[in-house]
Amino acid sequence: MRQPIVGHLDPFFFQVNEEIRGWLKLCFGTANEFTMVLSGTGSAGMECAITNFVEPGTKVAMFANGYFSDRLTEMARRHGAVIARFEKPWGETYTDAEARQFIAAEKPQVVAFVNAETSTGAHQPGHGICQAAHDAGALVIADCVTSLGGMPINVDECGIDVAYSGTQKALGCPPGLAPITCSPRALDWLRNRKESSVSWYLDLKLLLDYYESAHRYHHTAPISMFYALRESLAIIAEEGLDARFARHKANHEAFVAGLAELGVGMLVQPGHRLWTLNTPLVPEGVNELNVRKRLMAEHGIEIAGGLGPLAGKVFRIGTMGYGSSAENVKLLLETLGEALKAEGWKA
Amino acid sequence: MRQPIVGHLDPFFFQVNEEIRGWLKLCFGTANEFTMVLSGTGSAGMECAITNFVEPGTKVAMFANGYFSDRLTEMARRHGAVIARFEKPWGETYTDAEARQFIAAEKPQVVAFVNAETSTGAHQPGHGICQAAHDAGALVIADCVTSLGGMPINVDECGIDVAYSGTQKALGCPPGLAPITCSPRALDWLRNRKESSVSWYLDLKLLLDYYESAHRYHHTAPISMFYALRESLAIIAEEGLDARFARHKANHEAFVAGLAELGVGMLVQPGHRLWTLNTPLVPEGVNELNVRKRLMAEHGIEIAGGLGPLAGKVFRIGTMGYGSSAENVKLLLETLGEALKAEGWKA
Repeated sequence: MRQPIVGHLDPFFFQVNEEIRGWLKLCFGTANEFTMVLSGTGSAGMECAITNFVEPGTKVAMFANGYFSDRLTEMARRHGAVIARFEKPWGETYTDAEARQFIAAEKPQVVAFVNAETSTGAHQPGHGICQAAHDAGALVIADCVTSLGGMPINVDECGIDVAYSGTQKALGCPPGLAPITCSPRALDWLRNRKESSVSWYLDLKLLLDYYESAHRYHHTAPISMFYALRESLAIIAEEGLDARFARHKANHEAFVAGLAELGVGMLVQPGHRLWTLNTPLVPEGVNELNVRKRLMAEHGIEIAGGLGPLAGKVFRIGTMGYGSSAENVKLLLETLGEALKAEGWKA
Repeated sequence: MRQPIVGHLDPFFFQVNEEIRGWLKLCFGTANEFTMVLSGTGSAGMECAITNFVEPGTKVAMFANGYFSDRLTEMARRHGAVIARFEKPWGETYTDAEARQFIAAEKPQVVAFVNAETSTGAHQPGHGICQAAHDAGALVIADCVTSLGGMPINVDECGIDVAYSGTQKALGCPPGLAPITCSPRALDWLRNRKESSVSWYLDLKLLLDYYESAHRYHHTAPISMFYALRESLAIIAEEGLDARFARHKANHEAFVAGLAELGVGMLVQPGHRLWTLNTPLVPEGVNELNVRKRLMAEHGIEIAGGLGPLAGKVFRIGTMGYGSSAENVKLLLETLGEALKAEGWKA
């Protein structure tokens, strides 16, 4: 990030950008040419997906099982969407049959789901959702903020049309940019759109002209952040994606096994858990805030608490990027076990 | 930027942010408590001003004399504004009487002008515009991308209600953030707004809850960029604002004087020129693109060309931030003079 800054139309910048795009395609699991980076954080990625693909009156089917599907709902509402929500308790996921029934009943134009729900630790790969959506002629938006770079997303194999993410989770980069990828179907949709998106800053048509061959000035890209993302992706390429995914899986599983030994359960059912973000249940009678304060004060370890309906009920503990290591898992298990006991818990 | 990253809700981050806000107030020339930084580039600042203060049907009076007033117009259009444009040739500015007549005739709810027009080098301080706007009960938005940190803006003295900027111009910071300040009048306007802004990412009400005392999670701020901005502002504080403004003025004036000696004129009339961005006229018969290519190839100096109606007619040459120095002015005059001669120009 402290390399000399070049202009936002400098050939070197576009070279850096091309490298980023190539590596991002691998992380997303896509051949989409239309893969790029937005000059904002993960939430800007979400807003970009909504403002480009949701117009006033667009029927949106929302799989609503956590904090970030609520945020998607709110953004779609602000864009004038007609929204149908399939509500489930936070931490649960959807079966293919459930998804198909919902989509068939609602006949939406756009379907949105969260692939990696940061608020619950639940993983929704999305194959079933995408197939049902495409059968209904709908476009699929997927939030991949907490999965990109830490576990396979398989955008093309799943059939996700628009996937966005952030840089500061499993990509292991500072926050500040939002990778996004769009399928050829999404691109057609965009080309056929009559009214321009309300957002000019996140207008994908204008951004295409900037980042693609025309290099037409749009905004001044945050060059230093692009350098940082390029380096993060180079580190990922050095490790190898398969090795990286395997590392995340192994450390997540070791952490869950260790928690089980301690007697601590998990919110999310086996097979539906993120490898990057773990949500152990707070044992009965334990004050979770005190546990978190202890870890911070005594060990400098920051873990998060539950949001919304999960406040006080789960911890949210990241094992992602550089932080996903056997040493960290061991340290987490030791210190968390200690802190729980210090807070009066008897397994 | 390579300092360790803390969480987006870490007390240290909010401490850094408070320092930034304090220094930004001085640069803007305002006592506005509502002074903050947006997680996007200068154009995100522009979009934030529009999405928060322009609703469908809002009557907007636009002072249209350059590229960035056209961008403001386009953003306002996308938000459903009814727009009245006061067109002037690029490079010109507006007298107080002209501003008053326009505003009195149009009776707008929002008035927008560009304080520092990056495409033309023209400076519109805005006192007259603001007074006429307030007399008409309208709110005033000002684009200060190329003035903040390089010349006085005097937000409070002028009566500007919403001013935004970017970090990579006269603040001397990498691109990536957009400072913004809102007057108490603007804040009242916001509080009385019934519908939420279309943009969630740039919703100032939500951002207030994040950056102000409540510290309610909104998005993950780009921490490293905040570190960079804090350091840029610390450098400005060390130099002193008055000394910094005087340096920008002196180097701009020396550059213009040197150009006159060469026989090169300026697009903008004296007294209406930015100190940060100079627009010498391309001498008759000279191919401006060749001149720019020569400077880049032979000296590694990048200057910009004209946009829109000024393409081929002006150079755009920055003397801002660290780049505003007597040495740079001397070097620019020497190399530009050489390049013009090499392109066949005889003064």
